[in-house]
Amino acid sequence: MKIIVQKYGGSSVADAEKIKAVAVKISKKLKEKAKLVVVVSAMGKTTDNLIKLAKEVSNKSVPRELDMLLTTGEQVSASLLAMALNDIGIKSKSLNAFQAEIMTTGDYMQARIKNLKAKRIKDLLKENDALIVTGFQGITEDGEITTLGRGGSDTSAVALAVALNAKCEIYSDVAGIYTTDPRLHPAAKKLKYITYDEMLEMSSLGAKVLHSRSVEIAKKFGITIYCGSTFSDEEGSYVMKNNIEQPIVSGLSVMDHQTQVTLSNLPMDNNLVQQIFEKVAREGLNVDMISVISNSGLNISFTIVEEKKSHVAKALTLILKDMKGFNIHYNSGYSKISIVGIGMKSSSGVASKFFKALEKVPLSLVTTSEIKISCLVEEKFKEKTVKALVTAFDL
Amino acid sequence: MKIIVQKYGGSSVADAEKIKAVAVKISKKLKEKAKLVVVVSAMGKTTDNLIKLAKEVSNKSVPRELDMLLTTGEQVSASLLAMALNDIGIKSKSLNAFQAEIMTTGDYMQARIKNLKAKRIKDLLKENDALIVTGFQGITEDGEITTLGRGGSDTSAVALAVALNAKCEIYSDVAGIYTTDPRLHPAAKKLKYITYDEMLEMSSLGAKVLHSRSVEIAKKFGITIYCGSTFSDEEGSYVMKNNIEQPIVSGLSVMDHQTQVTLSNLPMDNNLVQQIFEKVAREGLNVDMISVISNSGLNISFTIVEEKKSHVAKALTLILKDMKGFNIHYNSGYSKISIVGIGMKSSSGVASKFFKALEKVPLSLVTTSEIKISCLVEEKFKEKTVKALVTAFDL
Repeated sequence: MKIIVQKYGGSSVADAEKIKAVAVKISKKLKEKAKLVVVVSAMGKTTDNLIKLAKEVSNKSVPRELDMLLTTGEQVSASLLAMALNDIGIKSKSLNAFQAEIMTTGDYMQARIKNLKAKRIKDLLKENDALIVTGFQGITEDGEITTLGRGGSDTSAVALAVALNAKCEIYSDVAGIYTTDPRLHPAAKKLKYITYDEMLEMSSLGAKVLHSRSVEIAKKFGITIYCGSTFSDEEGSYVMKNNIEQPIVSGLSVMDHQTQVTLSNLPMDNNLVQQIFEKVAREGLNVDMISVISNSGLNISFTIVEEKKSHVAKALTLILKDMKGFNIHYNSGYSKISIVGIGMKSSSGVASKFFKALEKVPLSLVTTSEIKISCLVEEKFKEKTVKALVTAFDL
Repeated sequence: MKIIVQKYGGSSVADAEKIKAVAVKISKKLKEKAKLVVVVSAMGKTTDNLIKLAKEVSNKSVPRELDMLLTTGEQVSASLLAMALNDIGIKSKSLNAFQAEIMTTGDYMQARIKNLKAKRIKDLLKENDALIVTGFQGITEDGEITTLGRGGSDTSAVALAVALNAKCEIYSDVAGIYTTDPRLHPAAKKLKYITYDEMLEMSSLGAKVLHSRSVEIAKKFGITIYCGSTFSDEEGSYVMKNNIEQPIVSGLSVMDHQTQVTLSNLPMDNNLVQQIFEKVAREGLNVDMISVISNSGLNISFTIVEEKKSHVAKALTLILKDMKGFNIHYNSGYSKISIVGIGMKSSSGVASKFFKALEKVPLSLVTTSEIKISCLVEEKFKEKTVKALVTAFDL
């Protein structure tokens, strides 16, 4: 039995008409003599509206109850899509996470899938053409309802594709993966192929195409992910092991609202550095663009998202409370701009081309990995930086 | 451990402000040194809006998917109420039907509770002050999601009260049970006590106060139900075994949009009568006010709700296709008006008083039970009939 896992994002199921159009799209796919398992997100702005409602009720965040609340969104879209399919004569059933047995850890709002045997799905596929599974959500062994974090429906889809040994297709209102966000930069080019590592760098850098956990799972199990447009037949992009085309630089991503944290004149103490990043990580904060320079004293610089500033400041004050003579600065209003490409590994001169392109932009921080170069610039220089890089690397 | 089961209807949790007010009401109740299990309906018009959405997607009714869809409504209100309680420092968790283990039959849209051990609720009550349980819904042994029918949250509450050996309090925007609908007849009187049987007659007659299945369960297990107002401290009504006050007639109920079906001149054949009602019942239709008179031929008259007319006509045409010489009439635009009272059993003269009060109203059909007299009148006589009965029986 050939099985295809498809995932439709929130804008693809935003209203009754779109849900009916998705049903028609599914009916066409069934003609390929495959059975479909379809993962859906919540309709349009549902999740945002539910979060707004929660804030009206309480200022405190109660992660367990937020997950109870938010998971209703996908149950609504899943049942409606199953109805639309039945309406056009396709045998279909919707399943929530508990019914689909998507077992996760108990970390509310950021649970990880532990186990997905898909036994019931396999059984039900015998007598149904398409099963609709609620994305984004899971269930613990104790029957607690969890969510996989914003964008987690991608991860639900890839995990199901692994469990069912199926193809994986992810549909949204964007026709694939672009060198940079096509909504901001109309000249952005669509990539036909991108490797897992490139995609991971892209999505962890804020390029909102795929949930990064979904790419990690696809990489681990060697699942090729096709990303295409829900409502057009335009060819999309493939996320896979090898980038057949291997351009040096595949993409550019931009992350706004960055705060640069700079600690200078600290005592030379590797233990201290470790303490700082451990403490900050324990607070659940991602630090990024870390630069540590030992000179006469120790200088540490890293970036965080602006809204976490007070959190980080609190944590640092605690660690450094007995120390004297050092300086600490928080500078907000920055954008992080990165170029990513598996080809960088084997191609020299990328860094020099990068600096040459940006010679007129004041760079506050630059960090590099094997396949990525990132720079931090004041937001007012963002446009200029993006244009210069797009031109230099032909993105 | 003293446990109280409370149920709040949709209008009591219609928005964030009301949910917060319910949380405060619960916090006051907790001062009685009790633990609370709170059953909630969906917020305000949520269920109607979801049904509307389903109709936009498909004209066909798919009961399984409708239940998947509608059960999200209570999960939203339950999680929001749990958040509001946590916000004011009350330890609280929400549970959906699967988590609360409310086991039902597999009859979608009209499931019946089979088993409610409430083991998990008892465990969770040890470390929580209030548990919020989604009303209206259940789960089958196969993990299928079901609903108990419109108004089913009352039944969830009473069943939980039975399982937990608890008091049962049902709150809504009406301060108790009235002799007739106070929204239509401002002179309606609130009853302090009403028996299960009276309440059953009232609710099956369309007096929208309690889901009739909830009263059946309360009767079976001897649970007293208190019905009160969510947002006022006005004393409500008790549904219990004995009506301490025992008025002869406790209430009056009105059901609009009735169609009278009359079959005349049928052959005298009890088997045929049985066939007719069996077939109609199998279509899931409630017939009411049945009157069968054998004279020279057989005459059958009964009422159905107007919207089921074409359904019934189809069923009858099929049964009677080989017969000749009979007549069949469908007359719509009727109201059914009933008076109910446990006191009728032991009090003579109620029927004569009834007919005397209505001597100027053309009655199309009259049926009686031990504690009820119902009449069918054209809708234009409804007002007159209600006034006459309210006056005659001091309702």
